[in-house]
Amino acid sequence: MKNKIIDALAAKAKAASRELALVDTRTKNRALTAMAGALKRNRARIIGENKKDVSAAKKKGMPAALIDRLTLDQKRVNAMADSLLHIAKLKDPVGEVIGTTTRPNGLLIKKVRVPIGSVLIIYESRPNVTSDCIGLCLKSSNAVILRGGSEAFNSNIAIFDILNKEALRHNIPAGAISIVKNTDRKMIDALLNKEGVIDLVIPRGGESLIREVSKKSRIPVIRHYKGVCHTYVDAAADLSMAEDICFNAKVQRPGVCNAMETLLVDKKIAGKFLPSMIRRFKKAGVEIRGSAAVKKIVKDIKTASEKDWYTEYLGLVLSVKIVDGVDEAIAHIMKYGSYHSDAIVTKNKKNAERFLSEVDSACVYVNASTRFTDGGQFGKGAEMGISTDKIHARGPMGLEELTSYKYVVYGNGQVRK
Amino acid sequence: MKNKIIDALAAKAKAASRELALVDTRTKNRALTAMAGALKRNRARIIGENKKDVSAAKKKGMPAALIDRLTLDQKRVNAMADSLLHIAKLKDPVGEVIGTTTRPNGLLIKKVRVPIGSVLIIYESRPNVTSDCIGLCLKSSNAVILRGGSEAFNSNIAIFDILNKEALRHNIPAGAISIVKNTDRKMIDALLNKEGVIDLVIPRGGESLIREVSKKSRIPVIRHYKGVCHTYVDAAADLSMAEDICFNAKVQRPGVCNAMETLLVDKKIAGKFLPSMIRRFKKAGVEIRGSAAVKKIVKDIKTASEKDWYTEYLGLVLSVKIVDGVDEAIAHIMKYGSYHSDAIVTKNKKNAERFLSEVDSACVYVNASTRFTDGGQFGKGAEMGISTDKIHARGPMGLEELTSYKYVVYGNGQVRK
Repeated sequence: MKNKIIDALAAKAKAASRELALVDTRTKNRALTAMAGALKRNRARIIGENKKDVSAAKKKGMPAALIDRLTLDQKRVNAMADSLLHIAKLKDPVGEVIGTTTRPNGLLIKKVRVPIGSVLIIYESRPNVTSDCIGLCLKSSNAVILRGGSEAFNSNIAIFDILNKEALRHNIPAGAISIVKNTDRKMIDALLNKEGVIDLVIPRGGESLIREVSKKSRIPVIRHYKGVCHTYVDAAADLSMAEDICFNAKVQRPGVCNAMETLLVDKKIAGKFLPSMIRRFKKAGVEIRGSAAVKKIVKDIKTASEKDWYTEYLGLVLSVKIVDGVDEAIAHIMKYGSYHSDAIVTKNKKNAERFLSEVDSACVYVNASTRFTDGGQFGKGAEMGISTDKIHARGPMGLEELTSYKYVVYGNGQVRK
Repeated sequence: MKNKIIDALAAKAKAASRELALVDTRTKNRALTAMAGALKRNRARIIGENKKDVSAAKKKGMPAALIDRLTLDQKRVNAMADSLLHIAKLKDPVGEVIGTTTRPNGLLIKKVRVPIGSVLIIYESRPNVTSDCIGLCLKSSNAVILRGGSEAFNSNIAIFDILNKEALRHNIPAGAISIVKNTDRKMIDALLNKEGVIDLVIPRGGESLIREVSKKSRIPVIRHYKGVCHTYVDAAADLSMAEDICFNAKVQRPGVCNAMETLLVDKKIAGKFLPSMIRRFKKAGVEIRGSAAVKKIVKDIKTASEKDWYTEYLGLVLSVKIVDGVDEAIAHIMKYGSYHSDAIVTKNKKNAERFLSEVDSACVYVNASTRFTDGGQFGKGAEMGISTDKIHARGPMGLEELTSYKYVVYGNGQVRK
C-alpha cells in the first residue's frame, strides 16, 4: 500500500520532470513571482498551521533553539516570499551551453546544461526549507519531492499546498512539486528504492539522518555533513586581524555549519595572542576548552578531550590547541576536520599556499572568516545547502549544481571509420 | 581478516592520494612515459601471464568473443603503452582555475580543480582496462584501487606489477596504485563499505555487476549501464545519408555500447527506405527483427517481441519499428531506451530541435552515427567509460570528469556582518 503511494508519486514526478524541462524561463519566473504573492496573501493561514506544530513541539519538550527554528512569524514568511522573488531574478541555468567543440570531421559538439530530473529532499524542522527547495528546483526545471520532518508537518503541508496551487495556475505541470503527506519512516525507505525514477536525493539535517539516508539509498545522494571548521593563526599573522576573524567565525552566528569550532594557534605567538583573544571570547559567553599547552597560558578554562577535536558544537563553545606551525595545523585539520571550511590567518605567502593546497576542504580561506561559506556570499544567489561530498557538487550548491548536462551533436552525415 | 586487508589497502590509498594531489605535472608525465616503456620491455612476460588466463578460460568454455577480449598479443600490449604515452601528453586537469569571482567585499574566490581522492574501479575481462585506468587516475592525481575479474587475474597482476614498480621508481607515492589480489567477491563487499576512505566507485562491465555494486555501495558510484541506442529516420531525411548512418551505427563495431540496437522509421518514407536498407543489413549478416508494419514491407524477417525493444544485442541483430513521426519516435526512445546515445536523421530543423531537446540521453545526434560517443572522438583524449548517470559525469568520462573542485578564498581581514 505504502509502496503503491510512493510508486505513483515518484512516477508522476518523473513524468512531470520531462515536461518541466521544456518549460521556458518566462513561465517559470511568472510562476515564482505569483507564488511569492500567494505566500504573502496566505500569511495568516501559514502562521496558524505553524502554531499547531509549535505547540505540539512545546508539549513534547523540544529544546528552545529547535522551537525557534520551527517558528514562523510575519517576518519569516515575508522572507520566504522574498527568497522566491530573488530566485525568479536569477539566471536560468537550463539550456546554457557550457562547452563547444568542432571536431576535425566537422561534428559540432555542444555541452548543454539540462535539469537532473526528479530530486528528493529529506529535511528536518525548518519550514522555510519547503519553499526554498520548491523555488530552486522549479527554477532549475527539476521536479521536487519533499519529505519534511514530522515536527513541521502542518506548516509544510500548508506552504506546499499554497505554492503548488499557484504553480499549477501558472502552467507548471502537475507533479512537478509534490510532498509526502505521511510521516511514517517506511515511506523514506520506499522512496530511496526508486532508482531510475528519482534521480537524486539531498538529505538536509542532522548527521544521523544523513548517514541513514546514505546507507539505505540506491539513488545517488549528495551529502551535507557537519562543519567542524578551523581557523589557524600562523606565526606570521596580523594578530589584530586574526582576533577579529576568529571572533567573527565563532560568535557572529554559532549555530550554523560554517562557524568555527576549533582554533589552532602557532606556538610562536600563542603567548602573545591567546590571552586577549580568550578574554574577548569569554566576555561574549564562549566556553573555552583548551589543550594542556593552552591551559599553561590561560588559566581558568576547561580541558579539551580527544572527542572535542571532532565535535561540531553549533553553539558558544570553542576548542583551542597550540600547534607547531603550519604542518601540525594541516595535519590536525586533516585528522579531525570534516572538510567543510577552514582558514589560515597569515602574511606569509608560502604558508598560505601550503594551507590552501594541502587542506582538502570544500572551502579554504586565507585571512577571512569561515562564515562566508554560503551560496549568497559566494554570489550564487541562493543555495540548496553546503555539500561536503566531492562528487557532482562541493561546497555551496546553487542552481547550477542542480543541473546535469547532455552532449548535443550536429552532423551532416558523419560515420565512424 | 579479509576486512583487515581491505582496511589497510584503502587507508594506504587514501594517504597516498593526499601526497599524489601535490605531485607536479612533470613528475606524473615522466612516470607515465617510463611506465609505457616498461610495458614494452616486459611484453613477453605480460603475454606469458595472459596465456595462463586464456587457456584457463578456454578450459571453462568461455565464448569466443570473450576469449578475444581477454587475449593480449604484441600489438595490444603496444597499444596499451601508446595509450599511456598519449595520456602523458594530455593537459593536466589538476589545479585548473575553472571560475573566479571577486565579491563586493573584496573576497577573491577561485574555483579550482582538485583530484577526487581515491577511486575504486571494479571491472571485467579486458586486461587493457588495468593500464588505462592506472594511467588516467595517475594523470588526474587520483589514487586507484583496481579489482579486475578473476578470468584476467594473471594478466592484471603482471600489468599492475610492472606499472607500479616503474611508478615508484619515478616518485609516485606508494599506495597510489594498488590492486586487490584476492578474487573472493566478499572483498568487493568490504571495499564498498569504505565510505569516506574510498571516494568514488566506477564499475565497468555487465549490467548485473553494475547493479550489484550500485545496490551494495555506501560510496558514490558512477554507473556505466548498457546502451540501447536508436536511430530515427525522419520523413524529411536524406535517405541515402540515412542509410549510411544507420549501416555505420549497426555494423561498424556491433559489440560496443554506442552501436545502434533499434532503427525507427517514419511511416511516410518506410516503404521507400526500408527495402534497400534491410537488404544492405542482411548482406552484412545482420538479423532483422521487425514490427508487424515492417513485416508488411519486407518479408522474410523475424518478428520483434516486446522484449526486443529493451535489448542491447551487442551483436549483428537489429530491431526495426515504423513510427508515426518524431512524437512516436521520442516516446519510444524514452520508454525503451537506456539514455545513452540516440540519433535523428532529418533535414527538418524543427524536428531535429525537438528530438535533441526532448530525448533525455547523454548524447543526442542529428545526422551522424551514434558510434561517435567516445572520449577520443569527443576530443577528450582518453576515457574511463561512458556514464549513463546524470550526477557528476554524463557521457564519455575523461580526465576532467575524474576531478572535483574546491573553493580557494583570498581575503584581507573580511568578517561577516
